[in-house]
Amino acid sequence: MNWLLAFVPIAIGLHFLHPATYTLVFLMSCLAIIPLAGWLGHATEELSRRTSQGIGGLLNATFGNAAELIIAIMALRQGLYPVVKASLTGSIIGNVLLVFGGSVLAGGIKYKRQRFNVTGARAQSTLLTLAAIALVMPAGFHAVAGPQAFAREDGLSIAISFVLLAAYGAHLLFSLGTHKQLFSGEPTEEDEEPKWSMKKAVLVLAGATALIAWVSEILVGSVEAAASSMGMTRIFLGVIVVAIVGNAAEHSTAVMMALKNKMEISLGIAIGSSLQIALFVAPLLVLLSHVIGPRPMDLVFSPAEVLAVFVAVLITGQIASDGESNWLEGAQLLAVYIILAMVFFFLPEAPQLAHH
Amino acid sequence: MNWLLAFVPIAIGLHFLHPATYTLVFLMSCLAIIPLAGWLGHATEELSRRTSQGIGGLLNATFGNAAELIIAIMALRQGLYPVVKASLTGSIIGNVLLVFGGSVLAGGIKYKRQRFNVTGARAQSTLLTLAAIALVMPAGFHAVAGPQAFAREDGLSIAISFVLLAAYGAHLLFSLGTHKQLFSGEPTEEDEEPKWSMKKAVLVLAGATALIAWVSEILVGSVEAAASSMGMTRIFLGVIVVAIVGNAAEHSTAVMMALKNKMEISLGIAIGSSLQIALFVAPLLVLLSHVIGPRPMDLVFSPAEVLAVFVAVLITGQIASDGESNWLEGAQLLAVYIILAMVFFFLPEAPQLAHH
Amino acid sequence: MNWLLAFVPIAIGLHFLHPATYTLVFLMSCLAIIPLAGWLGHATEELSRRTSQGIGGLLNATFGNAAELIIAIMALRQGLYPVVKASLTGSIIGNVLLVFGGSVLAGGIKYKRQRFNVTGARAQSTLLTLAAIALVMPAGFHAVAGPQAFAREDGLSIAISFVLLAAYGAHLLFSLGTHKQLFSGEPTEEDEEPKWSMKKAVLVLAGATALIAWVSEILVGSVEAAASSMGMTRIFLGVIVVAIVGNAAEHSTAVMMALKNKMEISLGIAIGSSLQIALFVAPLLVLLSHVIGPRPMDLVFSPAEVLAVFVAVLITGQIASDGESNWLEGAQLLAVYIILAMVFFFLPEAPQLAHH
Repeated sequence: MNWLLAFVPIAIGLHFLHPATYTLVFLMSCLAIIPLAGWLGHATEELSRRTSQGIGGLLNATFGNAAELIIAIMALRQGLYPVVKASLTGSIIGNVLLVFGGSVLAGGIKYKRQRFNVTGARAQSTLLTLAAIALVMPAGFHAVAGPQAFAREDGLSIAISFVLLAAYGAHLLFSLGTHKQLFSGEPTEEDEEPKWSMKKAVLVLAGATALIAWVSEILVGSVEAAASSMGMTRIFLGVIVVAIVGNAAEHSTAVMMALKNKMEISLGIAIGSSLQIALFVAPLLVLLSHVIGPRPMDLVFSPAEVLAVFVAVLITGQIASDGESNWLEGAQLLAVYIILAMVFFFLPEAPQLAHH
Repeated sequence: MNWLLAFVPIAIGLHFLHPATYTLVFLMSCLAIIPLAGWLGHATEELSRRTSQGIGGLLNATFGNAAELIIAIMALRQGLYPVVKASLTGSIIGNVLLVFGGSVLAGGIKYKRQRFNVTGARAQSTLLTLAAIALVMPAGFHAVAGPQAFAREDGLSIAISFVLLAAYGAHLLFSLGTHKQLFSGEPTEEDEEPKWSMKKAVLVLAGATALIAWVSEILVGSVEAAASSMGMTRIFLGVIVVAIVGNAAEHSTAVMMALKNKMEISLGIAIGSSLQIALFVAPLLVLLSHVIGPRPMDLVFSPAEVLAVFVAVLITGQIASDGESNWLEGAQLLAVYIILAMVFFFLPEAPQLAHH
Repeated sequence: MNWLLAFVPIAIGLHFLHPATYTLVFLMSCLAIIPLAGWLGHATEELSRRTSQGIGGLLNATFGNAAELIIAIMALRQGLYPVVKASLTGSIIGNVLLVFGGSVLAGGIKYKRQRFNVTGARAQSTLLTLAAIALVMPAGFHAVAGPQAFAREDGLSIAISFVLLAAYGAHLLFSLGTHKQLFSGEPTEEDEEPKWSMKKAVLVLAGATALIAWVSEILVGSVEAAASSMGMTRIFLGVIVVAIVGNAAEHSTAVMMALKNKMEISLGIAIGSSLQIALFVAPLLVLLSHVIGPRPMDLVFSPAEVLAVFVAVLITGQIASDGESNWLEGAQLLAVYIILAMVFFFLPEAPQLAHH
């Protein structure tokens, strides 16, 4: 995937030399972020191997979706809240439907039936339900409470953000502490040994982060113009395109692990990423918006996003909760992803979204 | 049930001699379709026993709901799209709640606890969730996207129809091909031997199909007038009455199998029929409407239909997913059916339904 | 908890001497009901030990939520239907989220993994889904059918009430009759022996009932004024505060049982109480409203209540259905409760609620 790194200078150069070619700038930035996100993930892993297991898990859990977080922060600074929310939605559904679905399908073609620890899978899918409930509630409140209560939505969003962060903390305590054996799969010695020096890991981490931040800013700056010139909506670009870009690295790792019949790790990557976005990145962005955003961001997602997250979580829970998988289940997850992508494709640009 | 065949000439005769007695024509047609659907199913089974197992399964899968398909095509040709959608909804919820619920209750009264293959049951209930998601999405789109996007609903419906047909193909490949042992139950020699000659099977198939088509046309032509003269709504007649009539044959077979403690077969008939309606008949009708209908039919179901399908799939998934059943579970499925039937009974005729 | 009994004379005295101090009267009545509900439950248990097992189970099932029933009847007589519905909602979600969540968390901190009979748990969580469907349907009907059908909501509510009562009867037949071994847990000799004389049990039962009725009337009479003077809404007081008060006794028993690793009993108390409220108390109140209420009460809950019951049942089903629990699952149930409590706290007083 390293040849994709060539798109980093191309995207940056294009942005400075031909800033008006928005669509091209957008596409080049997308391609440039894919390998950078891969290197960022790689560096995080190397770093986590050089620390104790607990700290390493925490590092992975915190920086595992650093690329998405950086993209979202760039959009947050510019007040593009619909884009932020669309990329959060896209990351959540993309991880559970596209990444996990692709892994299950690929693994299921090779193996007739794959098994994974059912208690761990259930803990993760229940947390996903909790996250979906928390992210659905502000939109429900918005619909139910009526216009005179719009002012209270910030308060509700902040309160729910703290509950989500507490749930994330409990999840880390559970998966890295009290019940860590449920998530480990079989021990794999080869993978555990660090290959990079501490210095190299830190340097790559810093370099990749800086470059992602730079390219993200260019990407976010071009998204609105690119959307209109490609005849797509911002929400489609955010939910589908940006999310695929940000998760490409996880995707290939998860599929590889499924092909090695290590479904615990695939599941951990896919559902773990969704959890991290929903329980950690989303509330963090709400709180950050009070500091770096032009105005507070709330957790009121659009009805289409709410519906998408809800059905994604519903079918993932059903599929993950029996501790085994087959290719049809993977095909079903992908089918739901395709249906949701089509809904977002056909959905017209919602003017009222701009308010959030 | 063969004495019910007497209603075939009665219905047809009444239609020609006293065409204005709509309610009577409607009721006679209903009674006439019950034995015809039974004979159609019987002929399909006999035919499938004379072919290889794969082709036989495919035959069963394609013609298993031929009666519903024919009724729906007759309504489609007359542009009665609310009736088509109501009969699709009714078939889906009727099979999982009434047919499966009745089987579980009957079997559960005789046996304290009945078991069936959990992986097969889960595969089917997850597919049902996928189908529910696919059928809910256009209505969600309709509600969310606003009036300016109504024109895109046909495009979305066609796109979703192709995904549904692909999912149905995957389901057949799974249940007849790669994982067929999950759905077979224990082998039952007695049932597998064909009793009819090839010629008899084909003749009965052709005759029953032709008669059902004829009676269906009469039935569909009388449904609107019958509904208003009985003080019921078209949607109630479509969802409850027509669906019971079209599924009567499956119903008795499924209950008989449950009483023989062959729950895999009961489950396959009930949930399999729902899947066939949702994944095969519904998208086929959408595509057919572009050829034989007065205008394209979309997949936008009414909110009450969406809610009914959603809750039916939800509780069926919960009950089927543990691989065992008892009488209380059957009673619960029937209770949900009764509640839904009452909702449709009390629901006033929706004027806006006529647009679809 | 007996020292709380001191609040009984305080609440009654305050009501007569300083009737205008609504907030204080409300708070004192809340505190007074907690120990009375405990004594009522205790007397019911003692009485049920002196009768045959079947009658005893029936007694427990009928009077187990007598305190909530009495409070609701007092509110019903005064036509405060939003308060009645809010306390029903609060009891349902409070039992499955707060009582069961607290028990799972407390038990899970002591034991790494706790197990309970999976068939019994699934039967209860499926019944909970049935109850949620039944309670959601009238609100769905209200939203879907439009204003011209409001007059039919009473008919639908009565019809659904009879289905709920029949389901409750089926549940009793299942859990006390045909499948009682699923719910018993391990036998515990010590607990089964009656400690009170028959006379004492009956006297305590009668006394506690009379006092709860008296204090409830005072509590209900003060709830509107107390709500506005505390700056809270009636729905928040009903859903959160009154429900906590009415369930305090169950809560402590359920947690104690979880700490003794008797999860079947915890589950039976928590989910059993929710079932009793939803399948028995709610329909009984609808039917009673035709006799003792100023006008018929329907089952149309507000959208926020519907959403709350739905998500509570969804996540409880997911957590209870695998037959084992850990502390994280308890924490998740509590997190959902906190989120719902916050939603009700921020929700403005709905003027349209007053119609029901």
